[in-house]
Amino acid sequence: MSFDPKSLKRYLPILDWGSKYNSSTFANDGIAAIIVTIMLIPQSLAYALLAGLPAQMGLYASILPLVAYAIFGTSRALAVGPVAVVSLMTASVVGNMALQGTAEYAAAAITLAFLSGLVLLAMGIFRLGVFANFLSHPVIAGFITASGILIAASQVKHIFGISAGGHTLPERLIGLWENIGSTNFFTLVIGVAATSFLFWVRKGLKPLLLEKGVSPRMADIAAKAGPVAAVVVTTLLTFVLGLHNHGVKIVGEVPRGLPPLTLPKFSLDVWGQLFGASILISIIGFVESVSVAQTLAAKKRQRIVPDQELIGLGASNIAAAVSGGYPVTGGFARSVVNFDAGAETPAAGAFTAIGIALAALFLTPLLYFLPVATLAATIIVAVLSLVDFSILKTTWGYSKADFAAVLATILLTLGFGVETGVSSGVILSIGLHLYKTSRPHVAEVGLVPGTEHFRNIKRHEVLTKPELVTIRVDESLYFANARFLEDYILDRIADDQAIKHIVLMCPAVNEIDTSALETLEEINRRLSDSGIQLHLSEVKGPVMDRLQKSHFLHDLTGQVFLSQFAAMKALGDVTTPPPATSAPKPIEAA
Amino acid sequence: MSFDPKSLKRYLPILDWGSKYNSSTFANDGIAAIIVTIMLIPQSLAYALLAGLPAQMGLYASILPLVAYAIFGTSRALAVGPVAVVSLMTASVVGNMALQGTAEYAAAAITLAFLSGLVLLAMGIFRLGVFANFLSHPVIAGFITASGILIAASQVKHIFGISAGGHTLPERLIGLWENIGSTNFFTLVIGVAATSFLFWVRKGLKPLLLEKGVSPRMADIAAKAGPVAAVVVTTLLTFVLGLHNHGVKIVGEVPRGLPPLTLPKFSLDVWGQLFGASILISIIGFVESVSVAQTLAAKKRQRIVPDQELIGLGASNIAAAVSGGYPVTGGFARSVVNFDAGAETPAAGAFTAIGIALAALFLTPLLYFLPVATLAATIIVAVLSLVDFSILKTTWGYSKADFAAVLATILLTLGFGVETGVSSGVILSIGLHLYKTSRPHVAEVGLVPGTEHFRNIKRHEVLTKPELVTIRVDESLYFANARFLEDYILDRIADDQAIKHIVLMCPAVNEIDTSALETLEEINRRLSDSGIQLHLSEVKGPVMDRLQKSHFLHDLTGQVFLSQFAAMKALGDVTTPPPATSAPKPIEAA
Repeated sequence: MSFDPKSLKRYLPILDWGSKYNSSTFANDGIAAIIVTIMLIPQSLAYALLAGLPAQMGLYASILPLVAYAIFGTSRALAVGPVAVVSLMTASVVGNMALQGTAEYAAAAITLAFLSGLVLLAMGIFRLGVFANFLSHPVIAGFITASGILIAASQVKHIFGISAGGHTLPERLIGLWENIGSTNFFTLVIGVAATSFLFWVRKGLKPLLLEKGVSPRMADIAAKAGPVAAVVVTTLLTFVLGLHNHGVKIVGEVPRGLPPLTLPKFSLDVWGQLFGASILISIIGFVESVSVAQTLAAKKRQRIVPDQELIGLGASNIAAAVSGGYPVTGGFARSVVNFDAGAETPAAGAFTAIGIALAALFLTPLLYFLPVATLAATIIVAVLSLVDFSILKTTWGYSKADFAAVLATILLTLGFGVETGVSSGVILSIGLHLYKTSRPHVAEVGLVPGTEHFRNIKRHEVLTKPELVTIRVDESLYFANARFLEDYILDRIADDQAIKHIVLMCPAVNEIDTSALETLEEINRRLSDSGIQLHLSEVKGPVMDRLQKSHFLHDLTGQVFLSQFAAMKALGDVTTPPPATSAPKPIEAA
Repeated sequence: MSFDPKSLKRYLPILDWGSKYNSSTFANDGIAAIIVTIMLIPQSLAYALLAGLPAQMGLYASILPLVAYAIFGTSRALAVGPVAVVSLMTASVVGNMALQGTAEYAAAAITLAFLSGLVLLAMGIFRLGVFANFLSHPVIAGFITASGILIAASQVKHIFGISAGGHTLPERLIGLWENIGSTNFFTLVIGVAATSFLFWVRKGLKPLLLEKGVSPRMADIAAKAGPVAAVVVTTLLTFVLGLHNHGVKIVGEVPRGLPPLTLPKFSLDVWGQLFGASILISIIGFVESVSVAQTLAAKKRQRIVPDQELIGLGASNIAAAVSGGYPVTGGFARSVVNFDAGAETPAAGAFTAIGIALAALFLTPLLYFLPVATLAATIIVAVLSLVDFSILKTTWGYSKADFAAVLATILLTLGFGVETGVSSGVILSIGLHLYKTSRPHVAEVGLVPGTEHFRNIKRHEVLTKPELVTIRVDESLYFANARFLEDYILDRIADDQAIKHIVLMCPAVNEIDTSALETLEEINRRLSDSGIQLHLSEVKGPVMDRLQKSHFLHDLTGQVFLSQFAAMKALGDVTTPPPATSAPKPIEAA
């Protein structure tokens, strides 16, 4: 790899937009950064709580990772940091290894961020972003919906002020049911009030402000500041009324200062346990991030580079790991706010990082009396917007296979946790796809009278000859469907002693792999044993190039025809005179 | 499911061939059974040894399973019983759970047979035989070759009369190296002599006999009886010279009598540990069995029914489990012998079972002095014929992706054992296939002058219009390549302000799944934002039926054209007059 300036710009997009930076972009980025900072402070605390980590780790995950993304990322509007689904996955993975609240738990979360960073970087450098596409849209939609429900269920205990565990929905519901007797009244009041307030802010505040003549943009920003208002009011109430002495759980002491710079400890055992999960978290995080980045980029006719996004997110996660954070990615709601607030370059992210760093330095003492129930309310209101069952209806109408994959993903995520759910969804999507292509559409075709076109004999009035059977396969030939074709052809000839020629018409065959090649050789041999010649027609250029490298064309008992019409002309005297156009000459195989 | 006589015949093929049974088929089946019995006695003892089991379990696995297959199987020539690769896999799987020689080890092997039987039966009943196709031919070839080497390496210790363990090739070689000092001289002489003799029988005896005027068929049968001669001679030598007193390991006491009928014990723990492996063994066994069955059936223009084969093999394995055996499948060499010896119906298998039962009743005392080295020699000579590296050369020339899959399968099988090897091969085959289809061939096409044909603008002199871009995708659209198409189209329009229409030409699109549909909607939306209309042409019938169930055709900014020529006529005034044929009329979408 040569490092000319252009390739340097590929790996460091900051060199591209940085050179055009001016005071106008600075002002726009600055305003967006202030708004995102206000939104991000309660969010980062809440998501750390969701991940089972100390509150300050949420802040730490919102400083250096944003700077790293500003240097390496390609999206102009993506706001990186802790997000709900990745926090839930972190809790689920790390919870298998250590108890919440222990130093091992936090260390495992940091290691997970480091491994995710390495996985993302490696995928970016080897340009493997395409593997993220193996998550089908319906599976992602089902997974996000189920995760939203799981996350909301995990926070209900904080609204009631009770303890309850569990990774799956049934476990969580049983946990809540068993402990609901020990509900704390004051916590419940704060929790319900905060949740109701935040729902109202989301649904009712903006229309109200618009009615009062506030500009749409200001109304939007005011609505996004709702969580901050809830934090301030409930913190003050708790402090003034001393509610923490009446059993209301508060955030407590959050260490003041910038994150400590460290390297995650290497332990083969821990790394081995976390490696599989880090791949899953990386891919889920990347898919979530890249879809919002693409949506926002398209609005300004900009393009993002998926493989460079992998590098940007990889750098962010490594930055999170070395500064006491946990896995991060681009957040949906936050990025939309950043975009709407006018962010023009990734520098907005770096400015947000400064804002969060100032909060870590100066605001943490003020968070002492912040009730955990308020943070839980923030999470519940945020994630319930992710829950959307319409994908079930859409896929039911369009494709039963996709419906099965979505339903399985939702049920397995709710019933067995996020890792099982999303892995099963991926395996099922791939399995169903292979199953479909393993039974390709195969049609026996004949000549449409007066034309050079061939159509399915079952659907059209076409000309055929008893000694000539033409079979069109509507799929690439590869290992999963090779045997199907063999069975099809051998079954076809078993009933029919008149056949002298079989033509395989290949306009939709985009590939023939080694397994399929061996099957073709076998079909050729068996037809030959029965005194039948095998021919091919309309083989695509790249497929023919490949076949010429093999022995198959040598052994083929018949010919390879450029067009099916040429095959029919050569092999069976067509009963109607062919049209006046000159048909391509057949080429002899080998 | 209604049980009319025809469906009963589907599940019980014996009803079909049994009704036509007569004295001539009886005579032919009987002769074949005698020859197979002679071959199977030493084989079944040797493979039990390879699986780490007592010798009699090899005999037990060759009685009831053969009867079960005769009732449920569809192949007229398949000889079921213990085979090398499945025995190796059994040793590898069961070896993780218990020590060789213990009662737990034998019980686990029996349970493995039972689970394999259930898996095969379930696959047969739900007609899932198609999943066996997900093992690509090159991966199977690589796996069989690597297994052959592993098996041979596992038997070398018996030739030297030493102890050595290990599952992988490096472990086995190190084990041999460390223990070679304690080689037993007499064992080595017997082992080397038996191996050399068997190699000579295989390569040299048949030509010699043919030269002496023996009929080819008799010469062949004599060559197959080689192992029996080796067994008889070395057993006699050991007995007469008392070699077992000089450190030559012998088979020892083999319990006399028919197998005990039992049911495998149910233990959630053991079943859970064996379940994954039982799927792998079932599929490998099925693939091996069905390929030999198909090859032999084709020679007589018969057909076998793969889903019924699953039921036949499932019944065989359950029969093995209830009669003290271990996993079985159709053996390659043995089936060929059965076929060549004239077997006409599955009854030949049942007669072989009677032969083995007689051996278990009366011959076992004679096996007392049989040296283990002789059995090892039988295995080594048999499996080395499986080793064939030519698949590496074939795939290197034809498809680098397939080559990578084979090489990985061979190296991982040798280096990490059979389960890792074959699982990795399957995952790699599927991954590479998805990777290829995730980057489909996409061509921009134009009109070939004077025709209605459209060809790649990079390869042909064709007519185009700057405001009309036609893109032909040579692959079904599904989740793995949906984003690729989106990127391709958005990149294409980013450089070019003249474009007013994009036509997606779909003659090779055999499917559009939900993910791809959402991507098409997104492409439509983004093109619309840029003032560009999206059209489709040559959409296949089943794909169009599906699209009509969705909202896409409602939202589509352009039209759906029956042919690309119609699209070009309607959208860009073609510069040459079209030929005289009447072009199909465009249909308006929605």
